[in-house]
Amino acid sequence: MKIAVIGAVAAGTSAAAKARRTDKEAEIVVFEKGTDISYAGCGLPYYISGVTPSRSEIVMNTAEDFKEKYNVEVRLQHEVTQIETDGKKLKYKNLNTGETGEYKYDKLIIATGASPIKPPFEGLDLENIFTLRSVESADQIKVALSRKETQKVVIIGAGLIGLEMAESFRELGMDVTIVELEDQVLPPYSKEMAEIVAEHLREKEVELILDDGVDHFEGEDRVEKVVTASGKKIETDLVLLSIGVKANSELAEKAGVEIGKTGAIKVNERLETNLKDIYAAGDCAESTDLLTNKDVWVPLGSTANKQGRTAGENAAGGDYKHYGILKTGITKIFDLTVAKTGLDLEEAEKEEIDAVAVKIKAHNHASYYPGTAPIHLRGIFDRENGVIVGAEVIGGEGSDKRIDVLATAIYNRMTAGELFQVDLAYAPPYSGPKDAVAILGMVAEKKI
Amino acid sequence: MKIAVIGAVAAGTSAAAKARRTDKEAEIVVFEKGTDISYAGCGLPYYISGVTPSRSEIVMNTAEDFKEKYNVEVRLQHEVTQIETDGKKLKYKNLNTGETGEYKYDKLIIATGASPIKPPFEGLDLENIFTLRSVESADQIKVALSRKETQKVVIIGAGLIGLEMAESFRELGMDVTIVELEDQVLPPYSKEMAEIVAEHLREKEVELILDDGVDHFEGEDRVEKVVTASGKKIETDLVLLSIGVKANSELAEKAGVEIGKTGAIKVNERLETNLKDIYAAGDCAESTDLLTNKDVWVPLGSTANKQGRTAGENAAGGDYKHYGILKTGITKIFDLTVAKTGLDLEEAEKEEIDAVAVKIKAHNHASYYPGTAPIHLRGIFDRENGVIVGAEVIGGEGSDKRIDVLATAIYNRMTAGELFQVDLAYAPPYSGPKDAVAILGMVAEKKI
Repeated sequence: MKIAVIGAVAAGTSAAAKARRTDKEAEIVVFEKGTDISYAGCGLPYYISGVTPSRSEIVMNTAEDFKEKYNVEVRLQHEVTQIETDGKKLKYKNLNTGETGEYKYDKLIIATGASPIKPPFEGLDLENIFTLRSVESADQIKVALSRKETQKVVIIGAGLIGLEMAESFRELGMDVTIVELEDQVLPPYSKEMAEIVAEHLREKEVELILDDGVDHFEGEDRVEKVVTASGKKIETDLVLLSIGVKANSELAEKAGVEIGKTGAIKVNERLETNLKDIYAAGDCAESTDLLTNKDVWVPLGSTANKQGRTAGENAAGGDYKHYGILKTGITKIFDLTVAKTGLDLEEAEKEEIDAVAVKIKAHNHASYYPGTAPIHLRGIFDRENGVIVGAEVIGGEGSDKRIDVLATAIYNRMTAGELFQVDLAYAPPYSGPKDAVAILGMVAEKKI
Repeated sequence: MKIAVIGAVAAGTSAAAKARRTDKEAEIVVFEKGTDISYAGCGLPYYISGVTPSRSEIVMNTAEDFKEKYNVEVRLQHEVTQIETDGKKLKYKNLNTGETGEYKYDKLIIATGASPIKPPFEGLDLENIFTLRSVESADQIKVALSRKETQKVVIIGAGLIGLEMAESFRELGMDVTIVELEDQVLPPYSKEMAEIVAEHLREKEVELILDDGVDHFEGEDRVEKVVTASGKKIETDLVLLSIGVKANSELAEKAGVEIGKTGAIKVNERLETNLKDIYAAGDCAESTDLLTNKDVWVPLGSTANKQGRTAGENAAGGDYKHYGILKTGITKIFDLTVAKTGLDLEEAEKEEIDAVAVKIKAHNHASYYPGTAPIHLRGIFDRENGVIVGAEVIGGEGSDKRIDVLATAIYNRMTAGELFQVDLAYAPPYSGPKDAVAILGMVAEKKI
């Protein structure tokens, strides 16, 4: 049995490791275009700011480690150029030597990830315009930031990565401006919650230009100005483009693998594609929204990990299912935790749910215990049955707890009343006698 | 409509406030034996250590506040001496003036709380032997601690209060010895988890004497020695008795209110006792174990709050139910968070569940993000269907999150597989790509 894996970041390495645990005998080979394996993509902002000082903490395994630990061969700088489904062959190119070759597989797992979107802006080729995805790109940004003439940074896009990087750049003492096309930061969030984040960013001296996009970049060799659609000219020494990512699905598509409406690879619960013996997992693959049963694409490390594991087990002869996702996401933005799970109001209405949003503000823990901080919770409830279908949480310490409790509640279709009833742990350093989640349930119950 | 409430701490004040919100017209009178209302019982260890410096932070309302806020009359230092169900009358005594009186009620809520157990040890009347329950008792302990001759403290009982107070006393620079009858700290916890706590206590220079009880106390006026059953003589300047509490149910019992097997007042979901128009709530009342459907008595602030609210609403003509509890509890013990929910192995076996314990150790968040700490999770699973029925969590920051997620999971009868599947929030400051809860589920799934 020969199992080939394309891609060696979260999903690819999870898949290979789980395949090995499932089948001790199989030959398992991972093809990776880049120079690093199993790096922590989500840790890159902290590597750049120096919060995580060492590169080796972010790149957690080497190909040698992986060989030794799992008896899996990782071929670095090997780009797979073609999947031949007829002969079950991969064609690859060694980017280092230029050599090409073929590999015959019995089972194939595609874990090619996603790439930053780079619209064809005029001036995009100027130096010091970056995207952030790989450790290599983080290294390049670190080098640029280490030059003393780098003082001003413009971030294009106020999504999760953009805002995490705003924190990183501010920690390094940069002037930071964010340009966002939508009229709010964090476009997937509700306006009332996004405004709390915007206010916090302004407190941290991040300049926000909302409702405006990039027209073009100007500069001699290096980028010197961002010119916006509305005509603003923002002087800068560095630009980070963080307007989103797209699934790396071209290779699969060319081989006849079905691509979903989202642009990512269509898979079933077993992470099988439409083609026999070909699996896909991680940021290149779709998932199922547990609430709507629709195919969705939300490329996140936690899902990549689970999908990889599932694909690896199945490719090696096992039978495991990845149920789907709630699209739960969380980010630290300066002193705020910002998190979201389930459906938002618009999504709920699209599902013909008679939805109502309930927003409360509570404390993370007893007011007399040091470190008390406000937490804002916003729940989306189905009026018909009182069930919670979505939530946003923004606040200080303890916000991550509330989003995980709410994600678990949403997974289980709990009602507002049950949010009040569920017996959460109380002691003064951790919550109030009525937890923030219980208060949300209580207020929602009254409102419905 | 006249609603009388006996007791003005967590349940009593919640009940009165909710009754007022339910019925704007009713006359509501609260009788309180002590001098303080709605104080934070759970905050007393922090008040003693000075972590919470001010008494007014612990005593959150005065009788005057309560009158103004809710139009509820609170009669302090008024002890109810008899409930006459025939004439629907309370007989009370003003402890300040000695005056007695009667109050006619239409609805009565008993929220008399619980009291520390004080076995008739020889020498119990010596000075500087305390229990901790009310703000007054905390004040007395603070005064004793402020004397410079108070250096050594012995705590009798290694339960939650005992261990919280060990931290408080150590913070104040005292030598602390704990004497515990059982052969482990935290008797309700499993041995393997309790041992983690014991080790932490020893690191913090708390001396543990396990498997030994008090025989008697010795001293001239003040306590000077604790003599144990095994004959150990421990020199001390102060003793804290924290071997448990008992429900204050005598007053109710004398009036014919049914007392459960636990010694606390028997109530239904509406918090009604066996007698018409008499409700009970909080530490004097039983609750239902959501997993076994049995009457249980677990006096905790979170439950008192919910029960009080429910009794108040129902006494005022509403209809609300308190479903029951999972017996979820949590405590901070120095740098550890210690928490438990649901059934332990013995309880599960008593329910004829084919139970298995699964213990894992995981990190609170990404290893490369600062502040990483280990968390121990121990889940009790039903082998037959994989459902989690109980859990213990002990560890650093983020342990409180995991117990709340697990409590929510247990409430919903989630399986080990679902613990792996549920889409919890991942970012490096908050968890690993596989959360500790997911790892517990994964390992349990394999083991079952």
